[in-house]
Amino acid sequence: MEVIMKKVKIALLGLGTVGKGIFNILKTNNEEITKRAGYDIEIAKILVRDKNKNRDIDVDENIITTNFEEVLYDESIDIIVEVIGGLQPAYEYVISALKNKKHVVTANKLLIASKGDELISIANEEGVSLYYEASVAGGIPIIHSIKESLTANKIEEIIGIMNGTTNYILSKMTEEGLSYETALKEAQAKGYAEADPTSDVGGYDALYKLRILTSLAFGCSVDIDKIYREGIESIKPIDIDYAKEFGFTIKLLSMVKEKSGALEMRVHPTMIPSTHPLANVNDSFNAIFVKGNAVGELMYYGRGAGELPTGSAVVGDIISILRNGLNNSIIAKKEDDCSNIEVSSMEKTKSEYYIRLSVKDEPGVLSKVSTILGENDVSIFSVIQKGKSKEFVPLVFVTHKTYEGNIKKSIDSIKKLPVVNKIESLIRVENLK
Amino acid sequence: MEVIMKKVKIALLGLGTVGKGIFNILKTNNEEITKRAGYDIEIAKILVRDKNKNRDIDVDENIITTNFEEVLYDESIDIIVEVIGGLQPAYEYVISALKNKKHVVTANKLLIASKGDELISIANEEGVSLYYEASVAGGIPIIHSIKESLTANKIEEIIGIMNGTTNYILSKMTEEGLSYETALKEAQAKGYAEADPTSDVGGYDALYKLRILTSLAFGCSVDIDKIYREGIESIKPIDIDYAKEFGFTIKLLSMVKEKSGALEMRVHPTMIPSTHPLANVNDSFNAIFVKGNAVGELMYYGRGAGELPTGSAVVGDIISILRNGLNNSIIAKKEDDCSNIEVSSMEKTKSEYYIRLSVKDEPGVLSKVSTILGENDVSIFSVIQKGKSKEFVPLVFVTHKTYEGNIKKSIDSIKKLPVVNKIESLIRVENLK
Repeated sequence: MEVIMKKVKIALLGLGTVGKGIFNILKTNNEEITKRAGYDIEIAKILVRDKNKNRDIDVDENIITTNFEEVLYDESIDIIVEVIGGLQPAYEYVISALKNKKHVVTANKLLIASKGDELISIANEEGVSLYYEASVAGGIPIIHSIKESLTANKIEEIIGIMNGTTNYILSKMTEEGLSYETALKEAQAKGYAEADPTSDVGGYDALYKLRILTSLAFGCSVDIDKIYREGIESIKPIDIDYAKEFGFTIKLLSMVKEKSGALEMRVHPTMIPSTHPLANVNDSFNAIFVKGNAVGELMYYGRGAGELPTGSAVVGDIISILRNGLNNSIIAKKEDDCSNIEVSSMEKTKSEYYIRLSVKDEPGVLSKVSTILGENDVSIFSVIQKGKSKEFVPLVFVTHKTYEGNIKKSIDSIKKLPVVNKIESLIRVENLK
Repeated sequence: MEVIMKKVKIALLGLGTVGKGIFNILKTNNEEITKRAGYDIEIAKILVRDKNKNRDIDVDENIITTNFEEVLYDESIDIIVEVIGGLQPAYEYVISALKNKKHVVTANKLLIASKGDELISIANEEGVSLYYEASVAGGIPIIHSIKESLTANKIEEIIGIMNGTTNYILSKMTEEGLSYETALKEAQAKGYAEADPTSDVGGYDALYKLRILTSLAFGCSVDIDKIYREGIESIKPIDIDYAKEFGFTIKLLSMVKEKSGALEMRVHPTMIPSTHPLANVNDSFNAIFVKGNAVGELMYYGRGAGELPTGSAVVGDIISILRNGLNNSIIAKKEDDCSNIEVSSMEKTKSEYYIRLSVKDEPGVLSKVSTILGENDVSIFSVIQKGKSKEFVPLVFVTHKTYEGNIKKSIDSIKKLPVVNKIESLIRVENLK
């Protein structure tokens, strides 16, 4: 039986790392992809900023353009793939594409985290699809799983390592004892971190991803500014060493938990038991734990970034659109069913805490500190006090579970003790089982 | 806006562990499921063998029947869920259901592994859907991921812990030093192993699951009898101890790898590096590694069995069918595009090997053994020789990578050495990175 293969034209906006990945995957796996999609996929246009940039990729010059309108008004193009990143001009381009009845696939976490609701509404109105699997955890099909596979569950919590750059840095610090600054430089040299690393090391990237997963899992549109965020910039090798002594490993975690009708959402460096699977996720890998009330605990582990893993997710989305049929749209869920859900304030969240002080080396310091803690309903789980010095010595402890508000009050008072030189660090501990 | 919710009737065949899980999930998560499916799902009939059995579940007696035809010819029922297990009568029931234009969801790995091709053909002919997410790894959405998310990839290999019972037994043996027999009894007491545990401990269950994933990932229909299978019955605590000394952990792995156009498929106890994520999958958890040429390495981890995790997968499938629309069928892929692919014979597969001999305690034994190995192109990577005895002492070694054929020839000759008492064990080693 001879099959006359249908053809479909797509356009890429952007030809950076991810764009090249998509180009290469469509070429290398052409036979399989054509069979699975039921379409022969042709990249008909690629929008770039600079036509003359050397891209080290074998692409037909005639399809490269610097003019978005050439893409937008090309009626032969059915799917537009946005891999520029950043908010502008991606936002404007995606809106125009949807309004011109193009299906859109994007890998842009900032765009989806901040404008997803609006874009989904527009896609639904226009009867086209908007897919964004690559926006969270690169090649790991976490979005598809939550949307399509875990539908029988009430999701109770999601906890994950969602940023590969910071995980690389923390892994290097943990395994090789490097300082934050040295590990960051290594990450930059390897291309894992950008020249301005703020979005990664400051926890913003992890925050966008958490925001996207939360909207899918809990059906809630949460204001990004309401989510607590703390980066890894102030993590010191000494804290990593103390963590090891307590049996913990430090990871940048993104977390959302539903607790009595409110959402607890936060992104911050966290000490977790070194025996927990998440503690053993190293290098630039990502891993996401999902807890559902039927499925129990699930974990996904894989490459959260990179040309081919991210490209894998984008091309998977393109194939999904083609399988659904170009004249069908998948009605994306609008996040309007949890208007009364609140994001808990950090004061009201509960955690265990690792606190490192530098204190005067004299008797009675621990007693003074623990009195203050006791007055604020904080009890100490474990203490390490070491060394002798004419100057200051470290006093390190981990508390039992308590409200963050109690910790803040304690810290405010401890700071004022004459025997205390400085609060050197405060890191939350999650005693994951 | 008032929404008049559509209703759909389904039937369960079987009300054992999984059946109860489905019943409970539909009840507990009714609100979320109705919203996501777009249908109010009603269990209209439940087929059981014995109506009078005490089931410890609050189900309307009027919907319980022992007569399959009452289900089959009830035109108000659109979806039939098969959770009886075993080949007969499940096979007959599913065929009848499909031929009567019912969509079918099944959790039956034996059925899909041995009759999947035929059932898929019938479903396609009849224009109905056949879903079976729960048949592999319980709640882990591995089938959906391979079918829908990793479509941009050529899958290169799948390696997994696909049976929770054997993983529980091996974990207990590893952590607590239990014998196989004692650990099995514990597993039976906990309900993890059946009275006749053969299907689990003999590796059959893991084999069915491997067969199902292979057909999806490689598009190949493989004869079950061609897949090498070995259970965990002969694993001894002493081998687990030696494994630890070599830095390995023993797991029952199911593996498929594509190598130069042939498939290497096998299920057997395997030593893997204790630092590998799969080595840290304990208790009754399952975990599956997938390697794609774009996405790289992905791992899925979760509960591979149990009432609610398996129910989660089944109900997820029901929701998928409803979302696709009851008048649509998802054309399942027939496995006809790899008729020329071969399953490699074990002789031609390559591995490292752990071999434990009991030998006479006299000089020159290692030299005699290693001479034979050398003649068969096998070289030793590491040796442990311990203890003194008038009788026999263990001689334990791990080889470098070699063909299984070479190992077999070596073993045949080593067996005949007068200084060798017995080949105590031979376990394959996979040096997973």
